[in-house]
Amino acid sequence: MLVKDLGEFNLIERFKKRIKLDSSVFLGSGDDCAVLKFDKKRFQLFTCDMIIEGVDFTHKDDPYFIGRKAVAASISDIASCLGTPTYCLVSLGMPKNTSLKFTDRLFKGMRDICREYKINIVGGDISSSRKIVVDVSMLGLVKKDNLVLRNGAKPGDLIFTTGESGGSILGKHLNFTPRINEARFLADNFKVNAMIDISDGLAQDLNHILRQSKAGALLYEGLIPKSPKARNLADALTSGEEFELLFTLNSVEAKRLLKKRIVNFKLIGEIVEKKYGFKLVYNSGRIKDINLKGFTHF
Amino acid sequence: MLVKDLGEFNLIERFKKRIKLDSSVFLGSGDDCAVLKFDKKRFQLFTCDMIIEGVDFTHKDDPYFIGRKAVAASISDIASCLGTPTYCLVSLGMPKNTSLKFTDRLFKGMRDICREYKINIVGGDISSSRKIVVDVSMLGLVKKDNLVLRNGAKPGDLIFTTGESGGSILGKHLNFTPRINEARFLADNFKVNAMIDISDGLAQDLNHILRQSKAGALLYEGLIPKSPKARNLADALTSGEEFELLFTLNSVEAKRLLKKRIVNFKLIGEIVEKKYGFKLVYNSGRIKDINLKGFTHF
Repeated sequence: MLVKDLGEFNLIERFKKRIKLDSSVFLGSGDDCAVLKFDKKRFQLFTCDMIIEGVDFTHKDDPYFIGRKAVAASISDIASCLGTPTYCLVSLGMPKNTSLKFTDRLFKGMRDICREYKINIVGGDISSSRKIVVDVSMLGLVKKDNLVLRNGAKPGDLIFTTGESGGSILGKHLNFTPRINEARFLADNFKVNAMIDISDGLAQDLNHILRQSKAGALLYEGLIPKSPKARNLADALTSGEEFELLFTLNSVEAKRLLKKRIVNFKLIGEIVEKKYGFKLVYNSGRIKDINLKGFTHF
Repeated sequence: MLVKDLGEFNLIERFKKRIKLDSSVFLGSGDDCAVLKFDKKRFQLFTCDMIIEGVDFTHKDDPYFIGRKAVAASISDIASCLGTPTYCLVSLGMPKNTSLKFTDRLFKGMRDICREYKINIVGGDISSSRKIVVDVSMLGLVKKDNLVLRNGAKPGDLIFTTGESGGSILGKHLNFTPRINEARFLADNFKVNAMIDISDGLAQDLNHILRQSKAGALLYEGLIPKSPKARNLADALTSGEEFELLFTLNSVEAKRLLKKRIVNFKLIGEIVEKKYGFKLVYNSGRIKDINLKGFTHF
């Protein structure tokens, strides 16, 4: 049996089952970040993201945005738990004949986004490699009261995203803005029940929330914010690496948020009981099961 | 200009110079681990090691030991600062047609060594990749009083290693024992002035200590512990990935250690003033400058 037969998510489950964690771990794998005991008021968040030439970018992409993406993907994971990023390490594999011009640009992309979000690059590892590989591991902090995971969605919650989806592969996947500011605003003003960032695709990532929250959902065709680059609705629902936040609020909190008329937050649907499944309500009134084909590695 | 023209260490320096760190960072890149403020009595250590098929191992190697090596290399970094490893994340890139048998063995290698040293695997990232890549990022803790860096060696210090060097490529690089127990013993009983683990080669790594401590050293041919697999003295001095600890103690502490007659610790030379350089004293009495050709990636 090959890893492609099992699939990415099953492979992660397979590994996860074999790990025993001690009591200092609040949450191990299975969410956007690991959550570790830190001090009385805060948890430490710990996450990593690996990007590889030919899968996540091509040699023709501007190395500035390759570096930026590697860091931004981890920032987005920290944002998904409503945390603040603090430190990162960078592991970099590249061919011996890589130009200094390339590595300087790549590094500048990392450094600039780290400066923007006040993250310290505290070290790393450099290896020779046939293909370019960048793995960023990042630490963050989150107030215990603010921590949000994938498992807290409840029937009656409304579902929001922070922006448009679809067509990320045409450019956004390399120069997206990790939603730290939106996360900060929500952490300071709202009680968020569940949250994830859209890396596998809106439908697939919402499904992660549904599975872990043991809930169902209805999405409304007319509410899904499609990027101008989205080919169609299906693309908006399945396009990976959009890095928007996807979250749920109970109805009271949701009304408070909607009243503020902030364009960054888009209502797209509602959480329902599990027995109702995961469905899309078309403008015509027709209701259909949602196709979960998002981006998976295997 | 290409990265191979600049070389690994200069490339790291080039990046390092361009980073600004805030005051919560006790030490950024340039040592075995980053050292971060944690609580009143302890620092947090943060390190990563990336290993890549065709560079650090081959597809024919037992995947158990590939997984083990990836984790053990980071444990060794934590040991080099006299810390205790706590948590790790694993980023794994592999081809879609990798067998589950392979990944299970790889994962078992990681899990077993983590259990042995009571490290929690708290998550990771899985990507498709043409070559197998494993990057482990690890956290640890060290008492502030115990923290040891590369920059504390002083003339008059004696130099020790925890074991034999040479011929690591013939097997040890995949199944070495990270020297956590030795580090614990030293932390509990001795004041260590400088320490590093041997990843680039004994001479090269001692040179890292000398450069950062602004000191010189004399090594004694008759004292260098050669592995049975070492081709010759030069191999014992330049073989990378031995993962022994290399450290210095002042003369009083060194005498205390020598009196204990512990076979794990081998005296190999002494720290001298910088003006005397870095030299090897042959059994014949001849003295020669040490050749710094160790393992470098570029």
